[in-house]
Amino acid sequence: MNKKVAIIMGSSSDAPVMNPAKELLASLDIPYEYMVVSAHRSPDWMYEFAASIEERNIGIVIAGAGGAAHLPGMMAALTTVPVIGVPINSSNSISGIDSLLSIVQMPNDVPVATVAVNGSHNAAILAAQILAVGSPEIEKKLKQRKADNREKVERQNQSIQ
Amino acid sequence: MNKKVAIIMGSSSDAPVMNPAKELLASLDIPYEYMVVSAHRSPDWMYEFAASIEERNIGIVIAGAGGAAHLPGMMAALTTVPVIGVPINSSNSISGIDSLLSIVQMPNDVPVATVAVNGSHNAAILAAQILAVGSPEIEKKLKQRKADNREKVERQNQSIQ
Amino acid sequence: MNKKVAIIMGSSSDAPVMNPAKELLASLDIPYEYMVVSAHRSPDWMYEFAASIEERNIGIVIAGAGGAAHLPGMMAALTTVPVIGVPINSSNSISGIDSLLSIVQMPNDVPVATVAVNGSHNAAILAAQILAVGSPEIEKKLKQRKADNREKVERQNQSIQ
Amino acid sequence: MNKKVAIIMGSSSDAPVMNPAKELLASLDIPYEYMVVSAHRSPDWMYEFAASIEERNIGIVIAGAGGAAHLPGMMAALTTVPVIGVPINSSNSISGIDSLLSIVQMPNDVPVATVAVNGSHNAAILAAQILAVGSPEIEKKLKQRKADNREKVERQNQSIQ
Amino acid sequence: MNKKVAIIMGSSSDAPVMNPAKELLASLDIPYEYMVVSAHRSPDWMYEFAASIEERNIGIVIAGAGGAAHLPGMMAALTTVPVIGVPINSSNSISGIDSLLSIVQMPNDVPVATVAVNGSHNAAILAAQILAVGSPEIEKKLKQRKADNREKVERQNQSIQ
Amino acid sequence: MNKKVAIIMGSSSDAPVMNPAKELLASLDIPYEYMVVSAHRSPDWMYEFAASIEERNIGIVIAGAGGAAHLPGMMAALTTVPVIGVPINSSNSISGIDSLLSIVQMPNDVPVATVAVNGSHNAAILAAQILAVGSPEIEKKLKQRKADNREKVERQNQSIQ
Amino acid sequence: MNKKVAIIMGSSSDAPVMNPAKELLASLDIPYEYMVVSAHRSPDWMYEFAASIEERNIGIVIAGAGGAAHLPGMMAALTTVPVIGVPINSSNSISGIDSLLSIVQMPNDVPVATVAVNGSHNAAILAAQILAVGSPEIEKKLKQRKADNREKVERQNQSIQ
Amino acid sequence: MNKKVAIIMGSSSDAPVMNPAKELLASLDIPYEYMVVSAHRSPDWMYEFAASIEERNIGIVIAGAGGAAHLPGMMAALTTVPVIGVPINSSNSISGIDSLLSIVQMPNDVPVATVAVNGSHNAAILAAQILAVGSPEIEKKLKQRKADNREKVERQNQSIQ
Repeated sequence: MNKKVAIIMGSSSDAPVMNPAKELLASLDIPYEYMVVSAHRSPDWMYEFAASIEERNIGIVIAGAGGAAHLPGMMAALTTVPVIGVPINSSNSISGIDSLLSIVQMPNDVPVATVAVNGSHNAAILAAQILAVGSPEIEKKLKQRKADNREKVERQNQSIQ
Repeated sequence: MNKKVAIIMGSSSDAPVMNPAKELLASLDIPYEYMVVSAHRSPDWMYEFAASIEERNIGIVIAGAGGAAHLPGMMAALTTVPVIGVPINSSNSISGIDSLLSIVQMPNDVPVATVAVNGSHNAAILAAQILAVGSPEIEKKLKQRKADNREKVERQNQSIQ
Repeated sequence: MNKKVAIIMGSSSDAPVMNPAKELLASLDIPYEYMVVSAHRSPDWMYEFAASIEERNIGIVIAGAGGAAHLPGMMAALTTVPVIGVPINSSNSISGIDSLLSIVQMPNDVPVATVAVNGSHNAAILAAQILAVGSPEIEKKLKQRKADNREKVERQNQSIQ
Repeated sequence: MNKKVAIIMGSSSDAPVMNPAKELLASLDIPYEYMVVSAHRSPDWMYEFAASIEERNIGIVIAGAGGAAHLPGMMAALTTVPVIGVPINSSNSISGIDSLLSIVQMPNDVPVATVAVNGSHNAAILAAQILAVGSPEIEKKLKQRKADNREKVERQNQSIQ
Repeated sequence: MNKKVAIIMGSSSDAPVMNPAKELLASLDIPYEYMVVSAHRSPDWMYEFAASIEERNIGIVIAGAGGAAHLPGMMAALTTVPVIGVPINSSNSISGIDSLLSIVQMPNDVPVATVAVNGSHNAAILAAQILAVGSPEIEKKLKQRKADNREKVERQNQSIQ
Repeated sequence: MNKKVAIIMGSSSDAPVMNPAKELLASLDIPYEYMVVSAHRSPDWMYEFAASIEERNIGIVIAGAGGAAHLPGMMAALTTVPVIGVPINSSNSISGIDSLLSIVQMPNDVPVATVAVNGSHNAAILAAQILAVGSPEIEKKLKQRKADNREKVERQNQSIQ
Repeated sequence: MNKKVAIIMGSSSDAPVMNPAKELLASLDIPYEYMVVSAHRSPDWMYEFAASIEERNIGIVIAGAGGAAHLPGMMAALTTVPVIGVPINSSNSISGIDSLLSIVQMPNDVPVATVAVNGSHNAAILAAQILAVGSPEIEKKLKQRKADNREKVERQNQSIQ
Repeated sequence: MNKKVAIIMGSSSDAPVMNPAKELLASLDIPYEYMVVSAHRSPDWMYEFAASIEERNIGIVIAGAGGAAHLPGMMAALTTVPVIGVPINSSNSISGIDSLLSIVQMPNDVPVATVAVNGSHNAAILAAQILAVGSPEIEKKLKQRKADNREKVERQNQSIQ
C-alpha cells in the first residue's frame, strides 16, 4: 500500500497545531502532502483539490480547522476516502467546543473521523492505523509504539517515586 | 429593487422549520426561491447554485441547517451576497447549540448573518430589512409591522388582566 | 447608495474590539459614524440616537456589546434598519457565550444579524454586502477582496512547505 | 410602606410562568400591577412605563423574559427601584441558559436581582423580603411561611417512611 | 432607615473580589459589616451569625462564594432578610458557571438575588436600591449616580472619535 | 461493622429518584435510615440531624438534591463521616448540570463523593464498598454482584444475536 | 480484503442505537460481528475480546457507549486496529455531551475516530471507507451511494416546491 | 485498620496535581502507594495492578486523570474497593469539564466517588473519612482538622477587617 496522506488546514496560522501530524507520519515513513486548503477563503481550490485526490494517490485526508470548522466536513462531502477531522482551538474559537461540534456532528452518510481538540498527532496515528489495515509493516511499527508507551509508563513510574 | 431571496435548506426534513420564512416573504410580496441545497449530500449542486445566483437575480440567501451546519458558511464562501444563517435544532442536533456555533463562528471576511435557533421567520424579516435599505415600499411595510406589534402588546396587556 | 453605517458600542473599553469594523469600512470608502451608545448607562441617548437614524442618513447599525448584551437587540427594537450584532468577550463575560446568546436569541419580528464573538471585522464585511445589494461598486470591491483571499491562500500554501 | 410591586413580562405567552408571582403577592396582601411590557415589540411603552413608576407608586419591578431576555436589564437601566429578573425557559430558549445569562450578566451600576429559571414564585418572595426591610408585618408573614415550610418537611418525612 | 448591610464571603481569599462592595457602600454612607463566614469550614459560626442578624441590625446580606457556592443559599435558608449572592470565579471554579448555578438555582420559597459573576459592585448597588425603597436620601444618590453614568458615556463618546 | 447508612433528600418529591438506594441497601442487608432533610427549608433540622449522626450510629450519609443542591455539601461541612452526593435532575434543574456542579465542586477539606446524575443506585453501591473496607461479608456480596453482572453481559450478548 | 468489522456496545439496551451500523454493513456485504462488550461490567471479557481481534480476523472496531463512555477508548488502548466511537445519548447521559467528550478527548497515541452522537450509521460508512482504501469494490459502492444521495436531494427539491 | 491507599495517575505529568493527596495522607500517617498507571498507554499494567490490590493490602484507590479520563472508571470495573476519581484539568482538557463528565457519569453498579476538578487534596480527605469509618484514631484527626479550619476562619475574619 503506497497511498499518501494529505494533511490540510484552513490557514497557515494552523500550522503549529498541525505540525505534529506531519512529524508523526514522517517518523513512520508514510508519504504525505501538507497544504493550506481553506473552505471559506478558497472554495474553488478546495473543490479542485478534492477532485484531484485520486490522481494524487491520496488515500486519507487529515483536515484541521477552527471555529465554524467546515473543511473536514466539506472534504467528506467531496470524496469517499476517509476524512479525519482535527478541531483547532484557534484564537477565534470558544475553547475549541465550536470547532469540535462543527466537525463531529455530521449528517448521515458523510462521516468525519473526529479526534480530540488540537489532536493532530492522534489524527496521524489514526491515519497510520487505517493504512495498517492493509500494511503489516505499518501495523508492526504501531505495535512497537504501543510497547514503547508501556515502557515509558514504567519509567515514569520510577521517576515519580 | 426586484432582487429575489433564496431560501435554501440542507434537507426536505428541514422544511417545517424553514416554512415561516417563505410565508413571511410571501406576505410582504418579496419574490423568493425555495430549495433543498445540501452542502454534504449535493456539494456540486451547491456550487452550481452559488454560481447561478447572479443569473437567478438573487440578492440575499437564507440558509438553514442543523448539526454540523455548513450550508450557510459555504454559501458565504461561494458568493458575495449577504447570507443569513438559520441554526436548526434537528433530531441529530445537541439542543441546536452545535448548529448555532457551526454557523456563527465564521472566520474573517466570510460572515454569516446568524439568527436565533429555528428562527427562520426572523431570517425573512432580516432579508426584508436588507432589501428595505433600497426600497421605501418594503421599509413602509416593516414600519407598519412594528406598529402592529406594539398594538398587539396592548391587546395582550388587556387580555391577561 | 450613500447611506452611512453606524458603529456603536456599549463602552469606550469596547473600542479595541470594534476598531476593525471602522478600519474595514474606511478601506472600502463607506461612510460611517463611530460612537458609544450604552443601553444600560445611557438609555435616553440610545432612544434619541435610534430616533435620529433616518435624519443621520444611517442605513445599517453595527452594535457591539459584552455580557448581558442588550444594545444590538434594543436597536433592532427601535428601528427597522438592519442591525448587525457583535458579541464581545469582555472582562465581565463568560467566554463570550453570554454575549453571543444575549444577542442572537431574539424573539420573532426583531432579528439581530449576529456575527462571531469579537467579529467586528465581519460585521463590517456584512454591512458592505448589504450595501452592495444596491451598489455595483461596493460589490466589485467585495469580489476583489474574495479574489485576494484566494491568492493569499496560495501564498500561505507555499510558505508552509 | 404601601408601595406596589409591578409584575411585567415580555409576552402574554409568559403568563403561565409568571402567574405564581401574582398569586404569592396576593396571598401576602401586597398590592401589585400585572402587565405585558415588551422591550422588543413595545420599546416606547416600556420607556413610558419606566417613567411612570414613581407616579404609579411602584417600589419594585419583577420582570420575566425568555431567550435574549432584555426586559429586566432595560428596566434596571431606566429606573432606580430594585428590578428582579425571572429567566423564562420559553419555546424559543436553549434550556433557559440563554435567558439566565442575558439577565444576570449585567454591567457595573445596573444590577438585576436574578432568580432561578422559571422562578417567578421566588421573585415574589424576594419582593416581599425587600418590602419587609421596612414592614414588620410582611416580615412576620415571611417568618410564618418559613416555619410552615419546616413543618412541611416534618410531614414529608413521615409520608415517605 | 439605618439598617446595616452585611458583606460576607467564604474565605479571606475572596476579599479582592468582594472589596468593591465595601467601597461602594462606604461611598454611599451606608453602614456595613465585612466578614468571613464559611458555610463549609465554619457552619456553626454561619448559624450563629444568621441568628444574630436582627440583633446586629442587619437588613440585607451580600454573600460571595465560589465553586459549589453554598453560603448565599444557606443564608437565605436561615434568615428572612434579602440575600444577594455574588458568584465568584475563584481558582477552584469552572469559569464561574459552577458558582453561578450553585447560587441562582434555588428552590421555592428560598430565593437568592443573584448578580453577575464577580459582580460585588453590583451587589452593593442592589443593596442600596433595596434600602432606597424606604430612604429618599439613598434614592437621590442612586439617581445622581445614574446621571453621572450618562455623562460618562458622553465623555467616552468624545474620547473615541 | 454494624453502622447504618442514612439516605436523605431535600424533598419528598425526590423519593422516586432516591428509592433505588434504599432497595439496594435492603438487598445487601445493610441497615439504613430514609429521611427528608432539607438544607433550605429545614436548616435547623439538618443541623440537628447532623449532630445526631454518632448517636444514631450512622457511618455514611447518602444525600440527594437538585438545582442549587446544598444538602450534600452542608452535611460534609457538619460531620466527618463520608458523604455521598446524588445530583438530582429535578423539574427546577438545568439537565442536572446545576445539581452536579453544586455538589461536586466542593472546597478543600470538605469533599462530597459525587456519583452520576440521578445515580442513587450507585450511591448505595459506593456506601456498600465503603462498609466493605471493614466487612468481608459485604465485600463477598459485592464480588458476587460483579460476577453476576459479567454473566448478564454474556446473556445480553446472546439475546442480541 | 476480507477483514471483518466488529460492532460492539456496552449494553443490549444500546442495540436500537447501534442497529443502523449493522444494517449498513449488511447492505454493503461487509462481514461483521455484533456483540455486547461492557468495559465496566465485563472488563475481563473486553480484554479477552481485544486479544482475539487478530484471530477473529477483525480489521476495524465500531464501539458505542453512553455516559462515562470508556469502551471505545479502552479498545483503542488494547489494540492497534482503527476504533470508531459512537457516543450514545442513553437515559443516563447529559444530552450525549458526556458520551461525546468521554470518547473524543483521548490522549496522545490512542485515538478514537469519533462520529456524531447516536451516529452508528456513519460509523459503518466510515468503516466501509477505511476498508475501501484497499478495496476498489467497496469504494465503488460508496461512490454509488454518494451519487444516490445527490439524486435524493434533487427529488426532495421537487417535493418541497 | 492498616489498609493502604493507592494514589494512581495516568501520567507523570499529572503528579503536580496529585501531589497534595500524597502530602495529606502522609500528614495523617495513612500508608499509601503513589504510582503512574495509564489506562490508555499501559492497560496490561492497569489490569495487573487491579488484580494485585488485595495482595498489596490496598483498601482504597484514588485515581486522577484528564480529558477522556478512563482510569478511575476502569479501576472501579476491575475491583470492589472504593475508587475516588480526581478530574484533572490537563493541557488537553476542555476546562476540566470533559474529565469531570468522563469520571462521574458511570453506569449502574460501577460507581466512582468523584471530587472537584483538580481536587486531589479532597480525594485524600475522603479516603481518610472512609478509613475513619473503622478507625477512631483517624476520625479524631479529621475532627481536629475540622476544628482547626473553624479557627482559621476566625483568624481570616480578623485579618480582613
